[in-house]
Amino acid sequence: MQDLNEFTVTDAVLEQMEKTTNPRLREIMAAAVRHLHAFAREVQLTPAEWLEGIGFMTEVGQKCTSARQETILLSDVLGLSALVNAMHAKTALEKPTDASLLGPFYRATSPHLELGAQIVSTPDAPELVFYGQVRDSAGHGIAHAMVQVWQTDAHGFYDLQLHGDDKMDNRASFTTDADGNFYFRTVRPLGYFIPLDGPVGRLISAQQRHGCRPAHIHFLIGADGFRELVTSLYFADDQYIDSDTVFGVSKSLIVEPGPDTASPFPALDAIHYDFTLSLANADGESRVGADPAQFTNAVSAH
Amino acid sequence: MQDLNEFTVTDAVLEQMEKTTNPRLREIMAAAVRHLHAFAREVQLTPAEWLEGIGFMTEVGQKCTSARQETILLSDVLGLSALVNAMHAKTALEKPTDASLLGPFYRATSPHLELGAQIVSTPDAPELVFYGQVRDSAGHGIAHAMVQVWQTDAHGFYDLQLHGDDKMDNRASFTTDADGNFYFRTVRPLGYFIPLDGPVGRLISAQQRHGCRPAHIHFLIGADGFRELVTSLYFADDQYIDSDTVFGVSKSLIVEPGPDTASPFPALDAIHYDFTLSLANADGESRVGADPAQFTNAVSAH
Repeated sequence: MQDLNEFTVTDAVLEQMEKTTNPRLREIMAAAVRHLHAFAREVQLTPAEWLEGIGFMTEVGQKCTSARQETILLSDVLGLSALVNAMHAKTALEKPTDASLLGPFYRATSPHLELGAQIVSTPDAPELVFYGQVRDSAGHGIAHAMVQVWQTDAHGFYDLQLHGDDKMDNRASFTTDADGNFYFRTVRPLGYFIPLDGPVGRLISAQQRHGCRPAHIHFLIGADGFRELVTSLYFADDQYIDSDTVFGVSKSLIVEPGPDTASPFPALDAIHYDFTLSLANADGESRVGADPAQFTNAVSAH
Repeated sequence: MQDLNEFTVTDAVLEQMEKTTNPRLREIMAAAVRHLHAFAREVQLTPAEWLEGIGFMTEVGQKCTSARQETILLSDVLGLSALVNAMHAKTALEKPTDASLLGPFYRATSPHLELGAQIVSTPDAPELVFYGQVRDSAGHGIAHAMVQVWQTDAHGFYDLQLHGDDKMDNRASFTTDADGNFYFRTVRPLGYFIPLDGPVGRLISAQQRHGCRPAHIHFLIGADGFRELVTSLYFADDQYIDSDTVFGVSKSLIVEPGPDTASPFPALDAIHYDFTLSLANADGESRVGADPAQFTNAVSAH
């Protein structure tokens, strides 16, 4: 055996992990150890700082409940979630609409509404209409695509924050028509603070970050044979549009409601946005949302 | 604003963290983000793998209780704890005895025994004697130094694992005599498996690692004006001496009991090991164990 020092200990760990059965796990853990050790060496992490980090990561895990995922929140504020999304986008067969974070307030099921419906139960702000088309990369509309939408209310709260599991609001699913078009009414959502009462909130405060996300509407769009699209549209005039605390905004995802005589509700301010899906990769891809085929069946059964 | 991709997102995160009030926190978090992102890019982490990692880290945090620290266990099996120890050793004013991991079974208080006492309540294996001197770097004995010792029993269990908080055993504290010498009796401890029933255990199994530590005796030694020494001595003939699952063994910390006519109990097999302390750094250093001054006072009061 050799004496381990701050450099040789890394090889000793890699050697103990060499027999890992799953080659991808071996690759990921070897890289994780190399980068973790390089980090500790670079900052010359002290025992006291190490212990503080241990306490922080423990608290992050312990803060998680079925209704709150503090570990994902940490990944979000460190930009890791956005980074993973960006790398995933590169692997699409064709160039789809840019992706954005799923966030912690997605629900697999939501009320399936007729096109044109209002998704907010009691709108207490001016109504907006949203309309658009779901397309393939050649620009052809995709009939019967699944469109799930969710957002905060005009005061910055998701239904889950106000009602827990008891009541759904400000969310719905739609099916595109024969030409791939869909439209619905809503109110302008408000941006919001990420949860600040946990360890991630303490970190954000120590970093003097505002902890806000600009106002946005979430979309999850799926259709048989296409890669699922998880994205959000952001409101151009939000004060935090350039400093999203979880790095979800892309230029191509910024919208601005306004008068639009071509909209299905010309009297209302409108947002018009068309979504492009990529063909699914041959090997099948994991999905966050419902299977579009099942979704279509469920819709037909209504 | 710019569109963020897998490379530019890193700078965007660093920019948001620039106003961190504490310069050391800013330095540590900036390095953490750079290395975390470099890791994700190197392995091209997929959304499904990211989610598995989120679940793993969450479970690690949630497995922790007042009697179990799974996050430290993770740090141990990834070699981070050994690395931090190695870097800490370099900052000593003088070269002390090599350090080793504190481990999860340390207790700040333990029975204070007279020199020569047996630390195992009911020895069910041949007795050993341990003797040695606590010295400064010039080789002079340090009188009234605090020596805390703890180990598993002959079957590989710490008192905390067998009795929880109810009963202390296989641990004690001693005070060196006027010449810096101390000695006590014990039995040979047995090596053991780290806890394998949690997420870290699952990882270790997937990596086909044995999950064992070689048999060892822990020491925490302190004296006024000296840097606290946290170390362990390892038994040479243990089958895991070259493959400690938490990377705590150094050559200089390997011992082998045997006949020793110079020992205080010449009829018993003996281990003789002398410990060297470094002078404390001027700025004061954080301690794990009790303040030696308080300890000495407590001893005098008996």
